[in-house]
Amino acid sequence: MATRHRVVIIGSGFGGLFAAKALRKAPVDITLIARTTHHLFQPLLYQVATGILSQGEIAPATREVLRRQRNVEVLLGEVTGVDLATRTVTAQSPVATYTTPYDSLIVAAGSTQSYFGNDQFADHAPGMKSIDDALELRGRIFGAFELAELEDDPVKAARWLTFVVVGAGPTGVEMAGQISELSRRALPGDYRRIDPRDARIILIDGAPVVLPAFGSHLSEKARQRLEKIGVEVRLNTMVVGVDATGIEVKHADGSQERIESICKIWAAGVAAAPLGAQLARDAGAETNRAGQVLVNPDTTLPGHPEVFVIGDMMALDKLPGVAQVAIQSARHAAGQIKARLAGQETGQPFRYRDKGSMATISRFSAVVSIGKTNLSGFIAWLMWLAVHLLYLVGFKNRFTAIAHWAVSFIGRGRSERAATWQQVFARNALKKDD
Amino acid sequence: MATRHRVVIIGSGFGGLFAAKALRKAPVDITLIARTTHHLFQPLLYQVATGILSQGEIAPATREVLRRQRNVEVLLGEVTGVDLATRTVTAQSPVATYTTPYDSLIVAAGSTQSYFGNDQFADHAPGMKSIDDALELRGRIFGAFELAELEDDPVKAARWLTFVVVGAGPTGVEMAGQISELSRRALPGDYRRIDPRDARIILIDGAPVVLPAFGSHLSEKARQRLEKIGVEVRLNTMVVGVDATGIEVKHADGSQERIESICKIWAAGVAAAPLGAQLARDAGAETNRAGQVLVNPDTTLPGHPEVFVIGDMMALDKLPGVAQVAIQSARHAAGQIKARLAGQETGQPFRYRDKGSMATISRFSAVVSIGKTNLSGFIAWLMWLAVHLLYLVGFKNRFTAIAHWAVSFIGRGRSERAATWQQVFARNALKKDD
Repeated sequence: MATRHRVVIIGSGFGGLFAAKALRKAPVDITLIARTTHHLFQPLLYQVATGILSQGEIAPATREVLRRQRNVEVLLGEVTGVDLATRTVTAQSPVATYTTPYDSLIVAAGSTQSYFGNDQFADHAPGMKSIDDALELRGRIFGAFELAELEDDPVKAARWLTFVVVGAGPTGVEMAGQISELSRRALPGDYRRIDPRDARIILIDGAPVVLPAFGSHLSEKARQRLEKIGVEVRLNTMVVGVDATGIEVKHADGSQERIESICKIWAAGVAAAPLGAQLARDAGAETNRAGQVLVNPDTTLPGHPEVFVIGDMMALDKLPGVAQVAIQSARHAAGQIKARLAGQETGQPFRYRDKGSMATISRFSAVVSIGKTNLSGFIAWLMWLAVHLLYLVGFKNRFTAIAHWAVSFIGRGRSERAATWQQVFARNALKKDD
Repeated sequence: MATRHRVVIIGSGFGGLFAAKALRKAPVDITLIARTTHHLFQPLLYQVATGILSQGEIAPATREVLRRQRNVEVLLGEVTGVDLATRTVTAQSPVATYTTPYDSLIVAAGSTQSYFGNDQFADHAPGMKSIDDALELRGRIFGAFELAELEDDPVKAARWLTFVVVGAGPTGVEMAGQISELSRRALPGDYRRIDPRDARIILIDGAPVVLPAFGSHLSEKARQRLEKIGVEVRLNTMVVGVDATGIEVKHADGSQERIESICKIWAAGVAAAPLGAQLARDAGAETNRAGQVLVNPDTTLPGHPEVFVIGDMMALDKLPGVAQVAIQSARHAAGQIKARLAGQETGQPFRYRDKGSMATISRFSAVVSIGKTNLSGFIAWLMWLAVHLLYLVGFKNRFTAIAHWAVSFIGRGRSERAATWQQVFARNALKKDD
């Protein structure tokens, strides 16, 4: 029996998972290699960080999602290199290094948080890209209220109760909104010495608007709603320094200001996984400033029609780093592979169909932009709810997520506040002189 | 206004939480100090480790549970010392040390895993006492299957697929049973190279029976059931060595054997929190080999009628380290404080009412011992289900736990398999020569 066409997929995010699914009926053997064992529904990470959902609900095991698709195997591994000449991928497991050959390769390793060259910010302002990040932030956010409760000095208590979110894209807006909900709705009554409603939530962005991708009307609506629920929105404001107990910002007029805050969250920038730069270098291709690979219009790596670079890792038509771009480019790559195997013409450019954008600001309030239609408020929130339920992978995750949403949105509780000793104690330790 | 009687409670487990609740209507001001922010329902930790429940479901925030009880404040802190002379408790937060005075003190800091003097075992065979432990074990258990899938060498694959549980009390039995369910029911179909049903689950105990507290009839039933679901039960077997890739055991006849296994779980012994020994020393009291304080019959520290040592920390009438002992001794201590404040006679001995014991072995199968009544099988499992739902704290945890149980017991999935990169990658790394 001749060996079937071998497809290796790197990554288990929206790009990797949907590429595998799109090849379900193709005459190929697929190996999906990813550094985590789960598919992560990143748009809801902020709900794990703020205690609404459990990690399992947004992170089903990749192999479980694909268990019935017999032409795919899922391997744990961090891909450390791709040899374009011999067509092999080298990956590292916790115990060994292994090499897997491919005929076609789909690179969907996604993106990491970017601190724009200031990696030292990361220790003090964690990003929001993984379950580890979300659990770390859960420990820091709930821990901040715990430590404010213990603080006799009102100045020090205030800096525990000042939360700074950097970046006013969907992740930052949703995070700021949820911290506000926590402090205004979920936590009052739980404390005896502090009033959680005294918490300040500051949302910072260098741009002049929040949610720029949504257009000026919705941006303004979102800003108003954020301010109504108590979020201080600071636009045209650049972050120039971050340390254990505060953040330095620079205003448009050039003046600088220090904000005392211990719990800071970085939702400002992303960079493509480093594998992108490595591939581009080997192929003689280019990357942009975010480390994304300048791919051909059909999402292939220049000079390598057998290698597709998709989702957050590709630079193409200034497409945004959202789930739909990853999903659609994955389907495009899968379609190209199927066409090639069927002897059909390939090389068709990837065309992105914008299905719209949505972001929740607080419970019952969201903004939705679909083509020329702009919606905000409760109806938009219902649409957000429906779409997110639909895209949550797997029946059982939808089932339990609804239970958790009912607890938080109809009730005002948080089912998943539990932060461990490690997360609360170890992560909130300050040095003596802080 | 005179200061009210101040009660300090150390610990937020069954002892600490139920002591606080029992003082709900008492004319006292309570400060509950605990090193975690949650009340942990320890009997279900094994379900967090094996992907059935989320951590939030068994660990509601202590301050949320007590939010309506206005005479209690909850503080985060690890108690480092008690000054019996000045009647103060010193605790450490992540950032500072603080001191709290008491008129009455209830010490309910619980127990830690004990390796019987072999603390070096801990790195290779984690215990099951905290959410951190359960999440670590989740990463190791699911990680073992992932790494077996990557292993070409069948001998090395086999040691990933050999799970050793040390200790055949309820925790060990339930853990072994659940790993068996994972390998036999939940995971087959997810893998392409290995068959999870090949996993060996070995349950080891130095005693001649499993679940000795349940009596010989149920012990035998439980052993039969375990063997039926594929657990190898090795009794009269002592652990004499544990390393990264195996465990050394000694049989009753003196012969030794090495079992190759990477994922090992320690459910063998507990020791009282070290605070017990410190208190005993300061009070001139004694501790037993497990570090429990030999208390007076009324659970007070000898010479200190204002200090109660309860639950897992007290040595009294050879009571077992179970939730009911903690709950009932907490209520007794609270009752003594109330009686004293009311000017009534105190010093009544604590009388434990044995409400019975139960342990699940697999879905639909449990053993229940209540007085002279012994039950096993499905009816016993329904009783287990009812009691655990009843004791899970808080409506919303019951609500979502039912959803998760339905997924795992009616279905065969695991909602909470998600182990993070940290948990899977970092925890399963072996050294080069292993």
